[in-house]
Amino acid sequence: MRLPYLTPDDPRRAEVGIGFFGLPWDGATSNRPGARHGPRGLRDASTMIRAMNRATGQLPFEAAACADLGDVAMNPVDQDQAMGDAEAFVSKVLTQDIRPIMVGGDHLCTLAVLRALKAQRGAPFGLILLDSHTDLYPAYFGSETLTHGNPFRQAVIEELIDPKRSMMIGMRGTSYNNEDFEFGQAHGLKIVPIEACFERGFDAVMAEAREIVGDNPTYVSFDIDFIDPTYAPGTGTPEIGGPTSFQAVQCVRALQGLNIIGADLVEVSPPFDPSGGTSWVGASILFELLCAMLPK
Amino acid sequence: MRLPYLTPDDPRRAEVGIGFFGLPWDGATSNRPGARHGPRGLRDASTMIRAMNRATGQLPFEAAACADLGDVAMNPVDQDQAMGDAEAFVSKVLTQDIRPIMVGGDHLCTLAVLRALKAQRGAPFGLILLDSHTDLYPAYFGSETLTHGNPFRQAVIEELIDPKRSMMIGMRGTSYNNEDFEFGQAHGLKIVPIEACFERGFDAVMAEAREIVGDNPTYVSFDIDFIDPTYAPGTGTPEIGGPTSFQAVQCVRALQGLNIIGADLVEVSPPFDPSGGTSWVGASILFELLCAMLPK
Amino acid sequence: MRLPYLTPDDPRRAEVGIGFFGLPWDGATSNRPGARHGPRGLRDASTMIRAMNRATGQLPFEAAACADLGDVAMNPVDQDQAMGDAEAFVSKVLTQDIRPIMVGGDHLCTLAVLRALKAQRGAPFGLILLDSHTDLYPAYFGSETLTHGNPFRQAVIEELIDPKRSMMIGMRGTSYNNEDFEFGQAHGLKIVPIEACFERGFDAVMAEAREIVGDNPTYVSFDIDFIDPTYAPGTGTPEIGGPTSFQAVQCVRALQGLNIIGADLVEVSPPFDPSGGTSWVGASILFELLCAMLPK
Amino acid sequence: MRLPYLTPDDPRRAEVGIGFFGLPWDGATSNRPGARHGPRGLRDASTMIRAMNRATGQLPFEAAACADLGDVAMNPVDQDQAMGDAEAFVSKVLTQDIRPIMVGGDHLCTLAVLRALKAQRGAPFGLILLDSHTDLYPAYFGSETLTHGNPFRQAVIEELIDPKRSMMIGMRGTSYNNEDFEFGQAHGLKIVPIEACFERGFDAVMAEAREIVGDNPTYVSFDIDFIDPTYAPGTGTPEIGGPTSFQAVQCVRALQGLNIIGADLVEVSPPFDPSGGTSWVGASILFELLCAMLPK
Amino acid sequence: MRLPYLTPDDPRRAEVGIGFFGLPWDGATSNRPGARHGPRGLRDASTMIRAMNRATGQLPFEAAACADLGDVAMNPVDQDQAMGDAEAFVSKVLTQDIRPIMVGGDHLCTLAVLRALKAQRGAPFGLILLDSHTDLYPAYFGSETLTHGNPFRQAVIEELIDPKRSMMIGMRGTSYNNEDFEFGQAHGLKIVPIEACFERGFDAVMAEAREIVGDNPTYVSFDIDFIDPTYAPGTGTPEIGGPTSFQAVQCVRALQGLNIIGADLVEVSPPFDPSGGTSWVGASILFELLCAMLPK
Amino acid sequence: MRLPYLTPDDPRRAEVGIGFFGLPWDGATSNRPGARHGPRGLRDASTMIRAMNRATGQLPFEAAACADLGDVAMNPVDQDQAMGDAEAFVSKVLTQDIRPIMVGGDHLCTLAVLRALKAQRGAPFGLILLDSHTDLYPAYFGSETLTHGNPFRQAVIEELIDPKRSMMIGMRGTSYNNEDFEFGQAHGLKIVPIEACFERGFDAVMAEAREIVGDNPTYVSFDIDFIDPTYAPGTGTPEIGGPTSFQAVQCVRALQGLNIIGADLVEVSPPFDPSGGTSWVGASILFELLCAMLPK
Repeated sequence: MRLPYLTPDDPRRAEVGIGFFGLPWDGATSNRPGARHGPRGLRDASTMIRAMNRATGQLPFEAAACADLGDVAMNPVDQDQAMGDAEAFVSKVLTQDIRPIMVGGDHLCTLAVLRALKAQRGAPFGLILLDSHTDLYPAYFGSETLTHGNPFRQAVIEELIDPKRSMMIGMRGTSYNNEDFEFGQAHGLKIVPIEACFERGFDAVMAEAREIVGDNPTYVSFDIDFIDPTYAPGTGTPEIGGPTSFQAVQCVRALQGLNIIGADLVEVSPPFDPSGGTSWVGASILFELLCAMLPK
Repeated sequence: MRLPYLTPDDPRRAEVGIGFFGLPWDGATSNRPGARHGPRGLRDASTMIRAMNRATGQLPFEAAACADLGDVAMNPVDQDQAMGDAEAFVSKVLTQDIRPIMVGGDHLCTLAVLRALKAQRGAPFGLILLDSHTDLYPAYFGSETLTHGNPFRQAVIEELIDPKRSMMIGMRGTSYNNEDFEFGQAHGLKIVPIEACFERGFDAVMAEAREIVGDNPTYVSFDIDFIDPTYAPGTGTPEIGGPTSFQAVQCVRALQGLNIIGADLVEVSPPFDPSGGTSWVGASILFELLCAMLPK
Repeated sequence: MRLPYLTPDDPRRAEVGIGFFGLPWDGATSNRPGARHGPRGLRDASTMIRAMNRATGQLPFEAAACADLGDVAMNPVDQDQAMGDAEAFVSKVLTQDIRPIMVGGDHLCTLAVLRALKAQRGAPFGLILLDSHTDLYPAYFGSETLTHGNPFRQAVIEELIDPKRSMMIGMRGTSYNNEDFEFGQAHGLKIVPIEACFERGFDAVMAEAREIVGDNPTYVSFDIDFIDPTYAPGTGTPEIGGPTSFQAVQCVRALQGLNIIGADLVEVSPPFDPSGGTSWVGASILFELLCAMLPK
Repeated sequence: MRLPYLTPDDPRRAEVGIGFFGLPWDGATSNRPGARHGPRGLRDASTMIRAMNRATGQLPFEAAACADLGDVAMNPVDQDQAMGDAEAFVSKVLTQDIRPIMVGGDHLCTLAVLRALKAQRGAPFGLILLDSHTDLYPAYFGSETLTHGNPFRQAVIEELIDPKRSMMIGMRGTSYNNEDFEFGQAHGLKIVPIEACFERGFDAVMAEAREIVGDNPTYVSFDIDFIDPTYAPGTGTPEIGGPTSFQAVQCVRALQGLNIIGADLVEVSPPFDPSGGTSWVGASILFELLCAMLPK
Repeated sequence: MRLPYLTPDDPRRAEVGIGFFGLPWDGATSNRPGARHGPRGLRDASTMIRAMNRATGQLPFEAAACADLGDVAMNPVDQDQAMGDAEAFVSKVLTQDIRPIMVGGDHLCTLAVLRALKAQRGAPFGLILLDSHTDLYPAYFGSETLTHGNPFRQAVIEELIDPKRSMMIGMRGTSYNNEDFEFGQAHGLKIVPIEACFERGFDAVMAEAREIVGDNPTYVSFDIDFIDPTYAPGTGTPEIGGPTSFQAVQCVRALQGLNIIGADLVEVSPPFDPSGGTSWVGASILFELLCAMLPK
Repeated sequence: MRLPYLTPDDPRRAEVGIGFFGLPWDGATSNRPGARHGPRGLRDASTMIRAMNRATGQLPFEAAACADLGDVAMNPVDQDQAMGDAEAFVSKVLTQDIRPIMVGGDHLCTLAVLRALKAQRGAPFGLILLDSHTDLYPAYFGSETLTHGNPFRQAVIEELIDPKRSMMIGMRGTSYNNEDFEFGQAHGLKIVPIEACFERGFDAVMAEAREIVGDNPTYVSFDIDFIDPTYAPGTGTPEIGGPTSFQAVQCVRALQGLNIIGADLVEVSPPFDPSGGTSWVGASILFELLCAMLPK
């Protein structure tokens, strides 16, 4: 979005209200890797974003002091080191009083942001997840290591998020079993499969989401595979039968006015996006996320 | 779908309830060939299918004893030999009391399956076709040889299917003339163009389909070009303005509870699907076809 | 569409009712060029168009004497010469009493057609624009030279079109500012953003369009980026969140019966369309535009 | 090459010296079809060919009266009809005293040209084949039907070509067995594998070819898979380890001065050539073939 | 190559002489991942390999009892577990007296094979590496974890290979520093940069390699990025200026007659190989590696 | 290459020895545009360049103080304004005593650099051009406007370069006529077609180039279409039969020690380079150009 790039110690960070940064890491991907190149693809596509959100009338780059905080150099082969470095980076951003918008990377990257937010705030917060998967699965492959299928189970276990003030929207596709839904329900976490979205309409679903999180602090996580893979093929675990890009934009616009403490867009994988179309959809979603974090 | 592969004489075939097999042949294609590589593309994509159909709660691989029966080696340059070999293969499958799900190949491959089914049952049966074309055209190019535009005209003429218990859904695109519609109507075969689908809704159309076939034995044929080419570009004769993949899935789910004696998915053409997205849509449809053949 | 090719002085032009021609020029493109190859891509894809429009029952090539009038050789590096040559070509077509369907090229090419039409008719005429942008911007880059963001502002200033009998449909995406909307509104030109299209339905919007232009002479301009970029990725300035190809076809069919004096399809860019899918969508739209210009 | 298109009965054919035409047919392809779209791809790419062969100083379109004779409409599903129609077309071209350059299509198309040439001349003629396969295999798949692996075996059997005045250059890749080499050697046909080409140099090999055919009438057949698949990926049966495009051009230039009665370029398959690079290589080879048929 | 698939406990393994297996793992990749899909891509492409190596006259599937031993299920997010499972798999293969040909996966996978071989033999063995990198770097990213830049440094340290009986061929591209060359030279390991290969010729270089390893047991590792990226683009760390596929084949053929105890082909990355050309080159190299392990 | 980005007035420019900058403009392209995206593609690919040139032992980023000077914002629709802005930018760079390496953009961009150099130095200088075209054509399309086919004719006419101390290497492909060669020869400019390069060897040709320019000030222009289009497909006017990337690198290395006052790499066109391979080749060439401008 042609924003100024500010290194961690740049004094201009003091004036920044919302900061974008990249976590170029996909070491927790179970099947098709490549999301590590997501920040690059999204930065490139974002140069086609202009100043004004015509639908809402907002001029977000004026309304919020925005900046590009750069990427975290994450060790591609050492999960602990990578997650620790990411959390430290976000913690510094939070102490500078900047609201973070993280650009992934695979979905485990979100866990690093949630940990930093919890450490700063001391209390769990709400979550709105737009995704085709719950990412509430237990660890698999017979190992303790986390994957991009676990971040929100882990976030519930570590009490980073408050499941009763959280909602997951758009789930679909085949699954190994029902363990993730059962885990969510046992903790009072509301999950809305795609069939219910299409039946009730996305407006009604998002209205329920607004009600659940209320004016409590809320984190918004957007997995690009929420959108139908025809609209966003460049991702590792596509599931057919999702919303259009227009419906996805409407979902994000419905978040406006909530108390959003951070957000992310994850799982954009440029190697599976030769035309660049997914990066363009992703950059447009990032722009709407930014607008949703501002007053109307 | 990571199913066990059973050769024709494997004794374990005795326990199989539903069997997948490929007809890798496109010798009847009028314009853009490549569907001969469909079985390979679909098998490859199907490795991303997991055990559970979350929308219906089914675990189909447990519910039915499923197997991969392999591909028929079809002569790419001799239509009579190819069709005869395919029919013989299916006949053997039927004598083993296995319900067939055929993976094409072009749409003429369906004719071989229909012939084998008629030979076994002795009586014509119903047909539900999801397709953008009727495939009810007369032979063309001034030749007697069949093409992928003829199978269902031929099936009516050979009295394989009962046109009065059959329905064709999703027709659209330009046409040479109206001969196919007129042939269908003259035989009492119900044809629903895409405009009517969008106007009435797919639920209403599928309800009519259920009524027409009742609990009579019914064959289901799914041409991937039923789906809009944006969702499924990898096919030889795409027609714009079709349903989304979600709507297609809903159509297949509406078949549940019918008396389905066999099914197919045809016309997936990997050379026109460099991203593999069409194979992924096709594998998802095959999974739903399998579920639709089981009790809920 | 396998039409006969007639050079400018071919005597058979006397019998032609509607003529297609190409303006292979993109010298006014601000970001991603390539629309200069649009006529070639569309001609190639159009060979898959058959004789009959099944939805309307029309056989347009019989109903109108159609011809391919070829491409104008436009200087890729000299805007004035290119625009002048295009206008002269169209003027000759108009004196031969042929209704033009122009195949672009970028959107500035439309201005050459509008100038020729105005010169012939002496009076401004109505416009229906299907597009994701208004193309009502002032010249930018600090230069007087026109770009593909200016044609309709220029057409209003030159009094080629009558803004009060004109309508623009489908606008979306980010913008530099609101100057284009304000210019349009100041001249009484009705602009319908995409959000209003989805809320009111395309049928209602098109009904309003029919009312605004009435039976006055009307030009129809179709920018391929009107359609969602998932359906039509091969264009220079895609904006997510647009209509499906089915909805786009419905919009064109709603034009039937109007007094259409010319039409175009612009901004198809084959270098950004490796699969050829956009050219196929574009050729289908051209076929529907042709049908819309005929009596039902 | 922007040549005038002349229908079979156009009187201007009387002045034509060399004519290009397409055989858009791949019904004899054993593995990956698509060569039926070769003529379209090559015609499209040939628009980038300019007037002068700088290396030889020739202006071939001036030196020979060249024309585009169009494509033969070949039945994609009936080999006998297709081959018959092609042979009839070529026979008419030969009676008009035009030297043919055929653009395939798969390699069986060459057989139709050879049959027409033999019928006209009454005597067998020499052959120079540039290819990675000998195409001297017996019919396979347990059928009498010909495939693109048989044309030259058939041409020897039908005594169309004189094997003792023929040479095959560039053979490589794995094979089923040695039957083709043995058949060729038994008939006195010289076969030069690629290892010998690289060892001796293409100049030496081509000098031997010139010696073998002498000034006898000779047909030149160029299978695009002669060239390394990195340079020409768009073909059905690629074999790695072939010559560069420069070496291929040198081979064709070495033919200059021979008594060439016809030539072809076959097996370009646009579906496997998304970038169009193979068509561009093919068009350049066609230009060199044309130049080789002219006096220096 | 359409070989029979034998599970680890299949009794037919007793008759197998050479076995292929896949290590679908790329968890040590520093930049562009995707090699985990290599075994799938290579198996798919290998179906175009036929029975006979025409250049050498070998029929390798007859000469050696070959089998496909399947893939090892490797944990994508746990390097220790993945490497351990791979080593255990290879150890079992070795106890069954099968010579292994490993299909990667990234280059760290080779280390698992080398460890198993050393454990079985008790003594270090020679290595011939065809690659554009030495993979002799120290661990980086400030971590102890191994990457695909370290396997051979680690193999020297663990005394798996004997550097004095080893040779590395084809090195090129930019580097961080000279630490790898210096490490190799300090241990008496011969490294031949690409400039020397082109100057001396590959025949001379391979003759030196034969001399260095003599008739001692030798492992051959072929990184697909040895070949120029134009010939083999589907890899994670391409370096321009490499050999052609023909030169690469000649290098492998030059290994014939050596005492080869195992071999591999690594770093084929299908996501970066949309055309499948790299898999086809890789499958051809695997076929030549197999032939090189047989008596002439 | 991860270099620091310095705006025109950044005081650190005083220490810079060699500066890269982009001219993202292709408004003079005759056929396939897209080179305007070249600087972006090359910057992206250059992140894979590491610190050391292993073949020469150079560490160029240490040896010269290098910087990224950014891109010039060039008006895409106004040639005069675009060329003027580019020349002004370069003039400022020259007054800061920085040797320029320009990244195009189409080949007309070179003219702006040559004009600035001449204005600074007052005297014409030598030129070494590696290209498949001479770019010595007269203006065409019946217009005075310059195209990317004219820059060096114009440079001779404006006496920017001294033709007698200049050399052009690699010319091939078809041409309209011989006007460019004749113009060059008439001015004493040495032109070496590709056939002569392959016959004499690139080493001999480059030795002659060194002799012609001597130790006089010399500008080096590298058009990516010098390299064979198989190695570098992403360009607007490819000509088959060119050198490999290795040969191209050898040509650049042969320039070392000359008195190089500036250099460029032009005509990389990312829209025609979906795999990014051409950008990677281009970035490698830029690195070698940089090294060639340093002492050994």
